[in-house]
Amino acid sequence: MAYRAPVEDIAFILDSVVPLSGIAATERFAEATPDTVSAILTEAGRMATEVLAPLNRNGDLTPARLENGAVRSSPGFDTGMAALAEGGWIGLSADPEYGGAGLPHTLNVAVGEMIGGACLALQLNPLLTQGQIEALQHHASDELRALYLPKLISGEWNGTMNLTEPQAGSDVGALTTRAERSDDGTYRVTGQKIFITWGDSDVNENTCHLVLARLPDGGKGTRGISLFMVPKYIPDENAKPGVANSLKVVSVEHKMGIHGSPTCVMSFEAAQGWLVGEEHKGMAAMFTMMNAARLAVGMQGVAVAEAALQQAAAYAAERVQMGAIITHPDVRRMLAVSRAEVFAARAIGLACAQALDMATATGDETWSARAAFLTPIAKSYGTDTGCRVADAGVQVHGGMGFIEETGAAQYLRDVRITPIYEGTNGIQAIDLVLRKMMDGGEMALALLDEVAAGADAAAPALPDLATPVAEAAQALRAATQSLLAASQPDRLAGATPYLAAFARVLGAHFHLIAAQKGAGAREALARIYITRILPRNAGDLAEAAAGIDQLTAIPDDAFGLGA
Amino acid sequence: MAYRAPVEDIAFILDSVVPLSGIAATERFAEATPDTVSAILTEAGRMATEVLAPLNRNGDLTPARLENGAVRSSPGFDTGMAALAEGGWIGLSADPEYGGAGLPHTLNVAVGEMIGGACLALQLNPLLTQGQIEALQHHASDELRALYLPKLISGEWNGTMNLTEPQAGSDVGALTTRAERSDDGTYRVTGQKIFITWGDSDVNENTCHLVLARLPDGGKGTRGISLFMVPKYIPDENAKPGVANSLKVVSVEHKMGIHGSPTCVMSFEAAQGWLVGEEHKGMAAMFTMMNAARLAVGMQGVAVAEAALQQAAAYAAERVQMGAIITHPDVRRMLAVSRAEVFAARAIGLACAQALDMATATGDETWSARAAFLTPIAKSYGTDTGCRVADAGVQVHGGMGFIEETGAAQYLRDVRITPIYEGTNGIQAIDLVLRKMMDGGEMALALLDEVAAGADAAAPALPDLATPVAEAAQALRAATQSLLAASQPDRLAGATPYLAAFARVLGAHFHLIAAQKGAGAREALARIYITRILPRNAGDLAEAAAGIDQLTAIPDDAFGLGA
Repeated sequence: MAYRAPVEDIAFILDSVVPLSGIAATERFAEATPDTVSAILTEAGRMATEVLAPLNRNGDLTPARLENGAVRSSPGFDTGMAALAEGGWIGLSADPEYGGAGLPHTLNVAVGEMIGGACLALQLNPLLTQGQIEALQHHASDELRALYLPKLISGEWNGTMNLTEPQAGSDVGALTTRAERSDDGTYRVTGQKIFITWGDSDVNENTCHLVLARLPDGGKGTRGISLFMVPKYIPDENAKPGVANSLKVVSVEHKMGIHGSPTCVMSFEAAQGWLVGEEHKGMAAMFTMMNAARLAVGMQGVAVAEAALQQAAAYAAERVQMGAIITHPDVRRMLAVSRAEVFAARAIGLACAQALDMATATGDETWSARAAFLTPIAKSYGTDTGCRVADAGVQVHGGMGFIEETGAAQYLRDVRITPIYEGTNGIQAIDLVLRKMMDGGEMALALLDEVAAGADAAAPALPDLATPVAEAAQALRAATQSLLAASQPDRLAGATPYLAAFARVLGAHFHLIAAQKGAGAREALARIYITRILPRNAGDLAEAAAGIDQLTAIPDDAFGLGA
Repeated sequence: MAYRAPVEDIAFILDSVVPLSGIAATERFAEATPDTVSAILTEAGRMATEVLAPLNRNGDLTPARLENGAVRSSPGFDTGMAALAEGGWIGLSADPEYGGAGLPHTLNVAVGEMIGGACLALQLNPLLTQGQIEALQHHASDELRALYLPKLISGEWNGTMNLTEPQAGSDVGALTTRAERSDDGTYRVTGQKIFITWGDSDVNENTCHLVLARLPDGGKGTRGISLFMVPKYIPDENAKPGVANSLKVVSVEHKMGIHGSPTCVMSFEAAQGWLVGEEHKGMAAMFTMMNAARLAVGMQGVAVAEAALQQAAAYAAERVQMGAIITHPDVRRMLAVSRAEVFAARAIGLACAQALDMATATGDETWSARAAFLTPIAKSYGTDTGCRVADAGVQVHGGMGFIEETGAAQYLRDVRITPIYEGTNGIQAIDLVLRKMMDGGEMALALLDEVAAGADAAAPALPDLATPVAEAAQALRAATQSLLAASQPDRLAGATPYLAAFARVLGAHFHLIAAQKGAGAREALARIYITRILPRNAGDLAEAAAGIDQLTAIPDDAFGLGA
C-alpha cells in the first residue's frame, strides 16, 4: 500500500493535544492561524503522498552512487527535490528576510515527518539543510547569512554537517582536521570527514559544507574547535557557483538502508573556508545545528513507523488466513500497540517543537529548558518507536515481510540508522541524565507535575486510565529523585532505561489528553497504551536503579565468553 | 572479528546447568560419555570456526541465484557442505542403522548452534535435511527409509519441506496442491509451493522434497492432507539420481537476509511422489519435522546472537572514544544484557533438547510433554533474543554498524527471518497457551515448581538472586492460573507477552543454577539477568492480562489512522 501522509492525526494533535493555539497567540507567530496551518498541512501531505512517496523504492533499488567523482542520485530524486524547493518547504520556518516563511518550527517538524514518511533518504537532504540554516542564522556573519541563506532556503543549494572522522565519532574533540588562516581573511581546511550525508548532490547546484576543524592555536578537545563554511563551488560575485573548491568525495558508503541518501567520505585539501561564529567556538554553532537535527531525526522515526504501520495494517486487512489476519488477536495486538506508540512519539516530538517555538516567541528560558529536556527524549523514543514499529510491520507480513519486494523490510533497514546518527540513543540518554538534569531535576519534576495535574483532571471522566498514569508519574518521580542522588556512574548505568520510562509517562499523558478530546477510537488507543505499554516502566525503572557495580563486576573478556 | 564457536559455554551448560549426565545414564545414550561429548563439541567448534565462518560474508555478498533453472549457490558453500557431510555432522543423532551416530539430539542441537553461528545461510541446508530425516524415520515405510535415509544422513542429498502456498501460510489447510494415485502405487503431485528453503542445490547431488498435497478424496482443511516424497531426480536401482522428476524452481526470492540460502518458488507438474505415512494423515509427519525444526530455529537465534555479540564485544574493546567504549556504562550495559540473554536462551534450548532425548530414551510421556511445552518457548525466546542482540550489536558499533562492510548489519538482516519461519512467534505463543496448556496447565505449573525449588535451594548462598526468582515464579503462577481461567480470545490477546514472561522465568532459573556452579563471572551475569531483565515480566504480565476487549474496541480502520 502506498504511504498516505497522516495529516488528520497531526492536525488533531496540534489542535487538541499539543495545541498550536498558544504559539499562534504570540506576536512572533501571529500568522499561524488555523486556516494557514490547515492549508499547509494539507498541501504538504498532498506533496508527500503524491510526489515523494512514489520515489521511495527507487532510492532503495538504485542507490546513490559515485560516478567520476560526483554523486549520481537515485531516479526521480531530482523531481522530488524540485517539489520541495518550489513548494518553499525548506524555508517554512526560516527568516522571511532571506526568503523563509517565518512560520512556527512546529509546522516544519510536522511537515518534515510527512516528507520523511514518504521518502526518508530524500528527506535527509532538506533536513541537513534546515539544520545548517539554523546554525548560520544564529552564528554566521551578516555577509555569510546574506550570501548563503537565500540559496539554502530556496533549496538551490544543500547544506551538510562535517563532524565525524574515523577516530572522532561521539568524541568530536578527537578530530584532526586542521584549519589555517589565509591572508585574505578566509581559511584553508585540510582533513578527511566520514558519514557526510548528502556530501555531494546532483539535485542541488551547490553543496555547502559546515566543517569542524582546529586552528593551529586551538586547544585540545572540543574547546579548540572552529566551524567553517566550505562550499563545493565558491560563490562568485553574482552568488552563482563559481570555481570548484579543493574538496572531493572519496567514496559513498554501502549501507544497510537509506540507499538513496549518499553517505560520503569527504576529503578537504586546503579547501577555502569562511569562519562561522568565533574562532575556537565552533562547537556552539554545531550544537545549534545538532539540536535541531536531533528532534528532526526523532520525527524520522515517527515518520517511518507511520509508513510501516499503514502498510502492515493494509496487509493485515487483506491477508486472509482463517479470516483476515487483522482480526487475529496477536496480529491486532501488534497493530494496536504500534499505533499507540506512533501517537505517543508524534505527540512528544511536537511538544518539543512547541517548546522551541514558545522559547523563540517569548524568550522565556523555561521554554528553552523544556525544549532542551525534551530533545533527547523525542530523539530516542521517536527512533526506537520507528524501529519497533517497522519490526512489527515485518512480523505482521509473515514470510512476505522478509521478501524485499514487499517493502516492509526497507522500512526496517532504513529506520535502523535513526537510533545511531545525530548522537546515538545512548548519547541522548547520557545528555538527559547529566546535562539536562544539571538543574537539579527542576524540569523533570515540573513535567511530572504537569502529568500528575493532567491525570487529576482526567480522573473524573476516565478513572481507569487516569489512575495508572498518576501512579506511573509518581514512580518516575521517585526514580528521578534517586537518580539525582546517585553517583555519575550509577546514573549512566541507568540512563537508557530511565529515558525510556520518562518517554512512556509523557506518551501516556498525551494519550490521556487525546482520550478526553477525541472520539471513541482515541480513548481505545489510550487504553492500549496505558494498559499494555506503560507497565513496561516497572522493568525499566528496576534497571535504571541497578547501578554500575554489577556492570563492572563482569570482566571485559566475559562478553566474548563464547570465544 | 571472526566468529569463534562457543564450545566452552555450551560445555558448561551441558555439564552444570542442563546436565547431559542424565541422558548418558540411559541405555539408549550410554555412548554419550563425557569424553565423547567433549571431543564432539571441540571438533564441531573447530569446523564451525575454521571452515564455515569464513563463508558467511560470501553468502551475503554473492547470493544464491537461479541460472538456467538451477540454483547456483554462494562461493565456497560447496566446501562447507562437504565438511558437514564428511564430518558426519548431519547424522549425529540419526539412527545408526542408516549411517547415523545415534548420539543424543542435545548434541545435535548444540552443534547446530555452532554451525548456524558460523554461517546461518548454509546451516539451513542440513537443518531442513535433519528435519526430514526425523520425519522419515518416524513415518515412512521401510523401503523409503532404506532408500533415502542413508543419502540424507551422509549429506549427499538434501531434504526440503514444502508446506506453504501463496494463500496457505499459517493456514496450511488452505493449500491447493493436489495429488493423484498412479497405477504403480506412486502418486502424481501438482501445484506451486513458495518459501522452499534450499529448494534446489548444487552442493547436494539430489534434493528430496517432502510435499503436502491433497488427494481427490482428501477432506477440507488439515485433516485431508497427505505427505509425499518427491525427489528432484528419481533414484535408480542403484540408489543414484536417475531421471529428472517433473518439478522445477520457478524463482529464487530476493530477501532481506540469509542471501546464501536459496528460497525457492517450486512448481510440481504431475511430479512422481511416494506416500509418507498414511493417506490424509500427512500433517502428523509434517509436525514431526516442524517440531524438530522449531527448536533448531530457536537455536539459530542463539547462534546469531552469539556471533553478533562476539563481534560487538571485540569492537567495543578496540574502539576508543574517550577510553575504550567497552568501559562506557551504557555500552557495557548493552553487552552485559546481551550476554545474559544469550546464556538464558541457550540454556532453554538445550533444556528442550534434553527433554526430547529423555523422552526418546525412557518413553516417559512427562518428558515428551515437557519438550512439547518448551519448544514454542525455545523457538520464540531464542529468535527474539537473536534479533535483540544483533540489534544491540549494530548499536554498539555506532555509525559503523550501519555500514555493510562491518558485518554487524548482516547479522541483523539474517536473523530477522527466524521469528517468522517455522511458525511465526505469534503462532508459537498461540501453540503455548492453547495446545500446550490443554493439560490444564499441569506442565506449566510443574516447571514453575521446579523454578521455585531451585530458588529455595539457592536462597542460603545467594539470597539477593534467589528471592526475585522465587517472586517471579510466583507471579507467573498467578498469571498462569488467570490465563487458564480466561476465555480463548483473552488468552490469545495475551499469548505473546505470556510466553515472553515464561521464558524469562526459565532464563532466570538457569542463571541461578549457573551462579552456584560457575565462577565469579557466572554469578555476575546472573545478577544482570535477574536485576535488569527479569523485572520486564511486570510489563509483560500486565499485558498478558489485558484481554481482547480493548483490542476489538479499536475499529479496523483506526490502525491506518494516518491514512
